[in-house]
Amino acid sequence: MISDLAAEIVIPACAVVGIIFSLVQWFLVAKVKLSSERHVNNGGNAKNGYNDYLIEEEEGVNDQNVVAKCADIQNAISEGATSFLFTEYQYVGVFMAAFAVLIFLFLGSVEGFSMESRSCTYNPFKKCKPALATAVFSTASFLLGAVTSVVSGFLGMKIATYANARTTLEARKGVGKAFIIAFRSGAVMGFLLAANGLLVLYIAINLFKLYYGDDWEGLFEAITGYGLGGSSMALFGRVGGGIYTKAADVGADLVGKVERNIPEDDPRNPAVIADNVGDNVGDIAGMGSDLFGSYAESSCAALVVASISSFGINHEFTAMCYPLLISSMGIIVCLITTLFATDFFEIKAVKEIEPALKKQLIISTILMTVGIAIISWIALPSSFTIFNFGTQKVVHNWQLFLCVCVGLWAGLIIGFVTEYYTSNAYSPVQDVADSCRTGAATNVIFGLALGYKSVIIPIFAIAVSIFVSFSFAAMYGIAVAALGMLSTIATGLAIDAYGPISDNAGGIAEMAGMSHRIRERTDALDAAGNTTAAIGKGFAIGSAALVSLALFGAFVSRASISTVDVLTPKVFIGLIVGAMLPYWFSAMTMKSVGSAALKMVEEVRRQFNSIPGLMEGTAKPDYATCVKISTDASIKEMIPPGALVMLTPLIVGTFFGVETLSGVLAGSLVSGVQIAISASNTGGAWDNAKKYIEAGASEHARTLGPKGSEPHKAAVIGDTIGDPLKDTSGPSLNILIKLMAVESLVFAPFFATHGGLLFKIF
Amino acid sequence: MISDLAAEIVIPACAVVGIIFSLVQWFLVAKVKLSSERHVNNGGNAKNGYNDYLIEEEEGVNDQNVVAKCADIQNAISEGATSFLFTEYQYVGVFMAAFAVLIFLFLGSVEGFSMESRSCTYNPFKKCKPALATAVFSTASFLLGAVTSVVSGFLGMKIATYANARTTLEARKGVGKAFIIAFRSGAVMGFLLAANGLLVLYIAINLFKLYYGDDWEGLFEAITGYGLGGSSMALFGRVGGGIYTKAADVGADLVGKVERNIPEDDPRNPAVIADNVGDNVGDIAGMGSDLFGSYAESSCAALVVASISSFGINHEFTAMCYPLLISSMGIIVCLITTLFATDFFEIKAVKEIEPALKKQLIISTILMTVGIAIISWIALPSSFTIFNFGTQKVVHNWQLFLCVCVGLWAGLIIGFVTEYYTSNAYSPVQDVADSCRTGAATNVIFGLALGYKSVIIPIFAIAVSIFVSFSFAAMYGIAVAALGMLSTIATGLAIDAYGPISDNAGGIAEMAGMSHRIRERTDALDAAGNTTAAIGKGFAIGSAALVSLALFGAFVSRASISTVDVLTPKVFIGLIVGAMLPYWFSAMTMKSVGSAALKMVEEVRRQFNSIPGLMEGTAKPDYATCVKISTDASIKEMIPPGALVMLTPLIVGTFFGVETLSGVLAGSLVSGVQIAISASNTGGAWDNAKKYIEAGASEHARTLGPKGSEPHKAAVIGDTIGDPLKDTSGPSLNILIKLMAVESLVFAPFFATHGGLLFKIF
Repeated sequence: MISDLAAEIVIPACAVVGIIFSLVQWFLVAKVKLSSERHVNNGGNAKNGYNDYLIEEEEGVNDQNVVAKCADIQNAISEGATSFLFTEYQYVGVFMAAFAVLIFLFLGSVEGFSMESRSCTYNPFKKCKPALATAVFSTASFLLGAVTSVVSGFLGMKIATYANARTTLEARKGVGKAFIIAFRSGAVMGFLLAANGLLVLYIAINLFKLYYGDDWEGLFEAITGYGLGGSSMALFGRVGGGIYTKAADVGADLVGKVERNIPEDDPRNPAVIADNVGDNVGDIAGMGSDLFGSYAESSCAALVVASISSFGINHEFTAMCYPLLISSMGIIVCLITTLFATDFFEIKAVKEIEPALKKQLIISTILMTVGIAIISWIALPSSFTIFNFGTQKVVHNWQLFLCVCVGLWAGLIIGFVTEYYTSNAYSPVQDVADSCRTGAATNVIFGLALGYKSVIIPIFAIAVSIFVSFSFAAMYGIAVAALGMLSTIATGLAIDAYGPISDNAGGIAEMAGMSHRIRERTDALDAAGNTTAAIGKGFAIGSAALVSLALFGAFVSRASISTVDVLTPKVFIGLIVGAMLPYWFSAMTMKSVGSAALKMVEEVRRQFNSIPGLMEGTAKPDYATCVKISTDASIKEMIPPGALVMLTPLIVGTFFGVETLSGVLAGSLVSGVQIAISASNTGGAWDNAKKYIEAGASEHARTLGPKGSEPHKAAVIGDTIGDPLKDTSGPSLNILIKLMAVESLVFAPFFATHGGLLFKIF
Repeated sequence: MISDLAAEIVIPACAVVGIIFSLVQWFLVAKVKLSSERHVNNGGNAKNGYNDYLIEEEEGVNDQNVVAKCADIQNAISEGATSFLFTEYQYVGVFMAAFAVLIFLFLGSVEGFSMESRSCTYNPFKKCKPALATAVFSTASFLLGAVTSVVSGFLGMKIATYANARTTLEARKGVGKAFIIAFRSGAVMGFLLAANGLLVLYIAINLFKLYYGDDWEGLFEAITGYGLGGSSMALFGRVGGGIYTKAADVGADLVGKVERNIPEDDPRNPAVIADNVGDNVGDIAGMGSDLFGSYAESSCAALVVASISSFGINHEFTAMCYPLLISSMGIIVCLITTLFATDFFEIKAVKEIEPALKKQLIISTILMTVGIAIISWIALPSSFTIFNFGTQKVVHNWQLFLCVCVGLWAGLIIGFVTEYYTSNAYSPVQDVADSCRTGAATNVIFGLALGYKSVIIPIFAIAVSIFVSFSFAAMYGIAVAALGMLSTIATGLAIDAYGPISDNAGGIAEMAGMSHRIRERTDALDAAGNTTAAIGKGFAIGSAALVSLALFGAFVSRASISTVDVLTPKVFIGLIVGAMLPYWFSAMTMKSVGSAALKMVEEVRRQFNSIPGLMEGTAKPDYATCVKISTDASIKEMIPPGALVMLTPLIVGTFFGVETLSGVLAGSLVSGVQIAISASNTGGAWDNAKKYIEAGASEHARTLGPKGSEPHKAAVIGDTIGDPLKDTSGPSLNILIKLMAVESLVFAPFFATHGGLLFKIF
């Protein structure tokens, strides 16, 4: 086994390596110049590297104007996104501050704000730090998690809006070059986020330890606030960003594509900038915050369980840090994996894009399996005990290795199934496209059926992971299985962020008036991006299911309940109401997107009708008003669903007690996972069915097309319906289930002491 | 308390009264003659009653031709429905026979087919009948339940196809007359079904008692087969009928309304007969079997729990028959309620239809509350004990009264909420209609959001019922709460069956070429019918939730497990996989409807293209081929989803054991209820949003219309998508959850003895 000192060094070292790697990637992306001077000066000299000749010269593509236009558009998108995020953070900041006060008051009140030491929860013969300390440190780690989440999302957005136009410009040199720029930018985000999350958590633990000393139980209880902060922020990011992006997207499509018959991302469409801003604040910043939240929570869940297991009781620091070591190894593995996409091979044709991304998943999974074996070997004693609802269960290191692996490989399976159901290379999406022959109605029926069906295998994969890891190492097993699934998060995020960057690149190409062939290349990148986005969501959902189960288990332990018996009325009503919450939440978010889109439609119509010369391209639309509509709608509409999620555990715990709350957590988990997966995949499939018809790459596809044909119109309707499903309500649901679980865990001491008011009164 | 003898007399007497009442209603419906002679002979003489002058004479409406045409069409529909049901029953018959053998073998094997008496499960000091007897009698009651279900569905279909043309003809005299005929026909079905179910169950109990003597535990365990038989039949009826009706409906609409721009039910549409047949086999026969199944199961669940409570232990026959007495009272209450609709008041205007139907719900609920109080007073001792997972819980008669009432009133609340979300008199549907302005996509987004939102209050109502009845009287409380909700089943079915009858009446009016004003009246009846159909589904789902929970509880008791702890891996994987099953099932049924509809579209297109003079109305389409397509598709496609539901409990119980099976039951229950409610309400709302635009009854509605406008086209797309949701997958889901629970209960002795093979091996 490696020493505690080695562990103390290895973890931050890996995090720093990750940060340096992402800066290198950023530097490489930055080599593509957005000012046109360089092209003018050096265009004819260099023959290799980033100063390559434009491989296929086309009329006007190297024009200074085009480059300047790209820079302008990028600037507009970046400004829009930055200003939206600042506005969002202001509003959410107020909410978070209020919630921080709530955490302090609730947790402080557990022992009446007493500053005296008390006997520990799990070891009554030992003295632990006062409850007030838990309140203070939980609040601090909550704020820390929130800030880290903000930084993660914001940095992701920055690099994405930095890379989009650069990807467009590289698309002039060929699809391979463009792919590398988009992927590198995704990697910047992935590595920054993974390393940042690890480093902050590591520093926080070490700082908290200065106060807590050997009271590890209290220390790691306080650390769970980090997960809560990360996920709370992620919730608003996802919901707000999701409403923003889809209001703009749906609004732009409904008037532009359907009524005015102009192409997607046409610069004449007043909502086009808002649409492209949306991709960055929703899919990039939102997704970043989301996965950071999952990562933080699964680490916290593992740590809190470990602290009351033999690791914590015997103060084995290295073993205690097992979750962090897994993440450290993940950064190194992903680093090697990334090189396969960017340096070892090069993509030459459109059809190589999807396999290249798929290879990333496979390579990272295989390497990581080895990595986990190494970590399990050197960081864990061969046998130890894990806390299991009041008893200590004996576990071997190879069992923990299997727990992490089963999560990791379940993630891969989920990824592949998602790809199968959402990529237009396979029959499910082609069947959906085919059903457009008979109109939008059959398209929707087939699409919904596809989404429902796509749930089956992922759920079995999750069930098997749960069974194996649960059987081997109880809740700790589940937590590390979740960490296993998230261990390759840097690669996962890279291929996920690649999607919206390519989408934006396509938008910029269209707006800058670049040639049809450039647009074809960016479209191909984007179609692969739809699939990878769905895969990313699959990972997010799968890991969320495991994470929330682990948190749920930690909550039950902390709240001192020994069983959660479905056949008691308190638990069962929680279960059925919990299963209803995802529907309530989805109703809110979908309605929000719908209403905001209607407003957007009215504004876009108004501009087309009232600005002379807009359709002819002689007058410029008023982009700012559309950006404002999206911003206002998302800020206003994100509050009710956010409040539903944040307040439910508080209300249920306070008034109905921990048993009912357990039911709510279990119910929302098992029901939410299904809706989240089916919504994401249905939406992804519709989007790619549309792209399948547009691309016309096969005999079958050509019988359905071209753009503007009746089947294509039906496909566009499906795509529009799928937008809020796949980018607003679906992906927000995994935050719902995680957040309620982590919040319950943080507030568990309060609920256990003061909860269940209603039943106490009656 | 009334004596056992009185109970023995009252129950069959009430059933017979119900049957007589329904025959009277049938007789009154039959007074409307379908042969035209009577009109010719007596038309000018009588002034009152059923020989009224035609209130509004219109050119040609009293024409002999029209009447003859109506008779012809009715004949075609009736023949199509009869022949489909016979075909369906043949196939299902084979399946049921095989399943009966399975039941016998599985249950017989529990004690190795031994014919010796054994000690009772719950009272080891007493001797009970051999396990082989349970096997034989369970198989017998299974078959009895299946046959009763077939009879219920078939009779319902017969009266519906008998009444549809008569409703059309009465519509010539005014909307009130037509309403009464449609409602009376619905009542025939409602009362026949309620009385029939009660009578058969009563006779079976008394016959079985001849063998079982005082072994009530064994007796009522064997009786549960009755519920299983009823529900298995209902599953195939619902799924098969649902696929039939929606394949025809979607196919007819897609070509007729969308492509050829001809009205709904136009006789030139080759799929029009299949569409009208579908209403009768799906919505009538399917719904009849479904609610009969719920009724049979909740009675069985209550009886089986009672048999191991003080009622059964002390052999108090009257108290034992409490569930049957509640149903008997229900028949009498519904009888009085029906008179309010048919005799005490008469409807004069279109806008009075919905309030009249709503009044039915309110009156029956209020009267039934009094009825339950009487029964609880005279049939129950003031205090007794109820079996509660191994212990006996003391319960008072007023507590049981409250249990039944809470179910009854929860049903009313669910009914009202459903009405609010699906009737076009309120803002939710009007908002959905309004969203059609921006096209089909926003219509679908708003419709889905509406369905999700409509889940909230029903779930709270169900949760409260569960909490109250569970707290008062454990699983027995839940079972009688379900019975409370179903106690007014005769009225519920009457207003439910009224919908498809009116729908058919409208179809016949169109096909017979009757005037626009007649069609307007039948459309008004039909719009109210959409809402009542949704209410009926709401009842079916709500009661299914309670029934399956009661059955689940009985199963857990029978399988000798004391807790179902979510935090054990065996249970949790069951929970998450169970929550997935409704999605799997919906994917199958929706895809089936989609594929069958595609075939139908091709056939209808083929006929329009190849039969000269079809569009001009000079040639007759080939209705039979379309009927055959629907029949073949539904027979073929109903098997896989049916097998999924029937085999899951067997596989899970046998290989994974009773804990995992408990998880599956709980998971499918809490997840299935939500999808079922949202699917039904979304579909109902879309249908009525379309009708709202078509009717153009308000200023707002007229801005969206008329028929053929862009918003109307968008509304038609929504309506088509809603068809499989509301009539195939949604309503089948409540059978899924009930059936899996009752099947688990029947097979519980086997699972408890031989189950969990996989875990035993590893």
